[in-house]
Amino acid sequence: MFILHINMILSMDLLKTYTDSRGKLTIAEAHREIPFDVQRIYWIYGVPDDQSRGMHANRISYQYLVAVKGVVEICLENADGRKHYLLDSPDKGLLVPPLTWNELLKFSEDAVLLVMASHPYEPQTYINSYEEFQLAVHPQTK
Amino acid sequence: MFILHINMILSMDLLKTYTDSRGKLTIAEAHREIPFDVQRIYWIYGVPDDQSRGMHANRISYQYLVAVKGVVEICLENADGRKHYLLDSPDKGLLVPPLTWNELLKFSEDAVLLVMASHPYEPQTYINSYEEFQLAVHPQTK
Repeated sequence: MFILHINMILSMDLLKTYTDSRGKLTIAEAHREIPFDVQRIYWIYGVPDDQSRGMHANRISYQYLVAVKGVVEICLENADGRKHYLLDSPDKGLLVPPLTWNELLKFSEDAVLLVMASHPYEPQTYINSYEEFQLAVHPQTK
Repeated sequence: MFILHINMILSMDLLKTYTDSRGKLTIAEAHREIPFDVQRIYWIYGVPDDQSRGMHANRISYQYLVAVKGVVEICLENADGRKHYLLDSPDKGLLVPPLTWNELLKFSEDAVLLVMASHPYEPQTYINSYEEFQLAVHPQTK
């Protein structure tokens, strides 16, 4: 049986960055670096050292994550496995497809995590239970 | 003659922010807080203390600005006048319509300015000369 490992399908992108004497500008365009229409943008910050966030998957929404400041440690899981990522630079982007369990495990004190999402917020599209997520991605184990 | 002042049309928004023990999340949705399709997102950072940016207007593109970290001092000018803005909190948003001259005057050392734009980058849509901008917004003075 051929198994796709998560590190084959969820890799970080290095975003185009323009650097000159006036500083840096990193860019992400819809339907280029971000492979969807951006309907919702949010940023998470001021997360205490001992707190984690996420701990859910979404049934339909794509998300694109960038730590535009500081460092955020993330764990993703899909049908093929789990993988850790360190978002530690404003030019690193991480695509999170639907049906990917995401754990935002650790934020540095100064961290700002930018999230661009393909859908408006719809609570019913979230899977908040890890057991329910397992059943969704491994239906044969039902 | 009735004159619209720029402070009547370009005011900062206070964006919806969810705060709990896990930190803060500030959100902006297309066609709600952001009154356009977001085609391009970029972030400006690492700007030296003595540098400014911007110094242009765009003929067609809307932009929405948020200092998601640090403080950015901005001056906008349209046909009705000039106004200074201090983006000093991740929940303050500033809409910049087309034909608005923008000067990003001062970035704090830690500042990250998030820009959401309605169009892909098209160099020919920029007005880079202040004189040309003046002619565009005050055609009667040509």
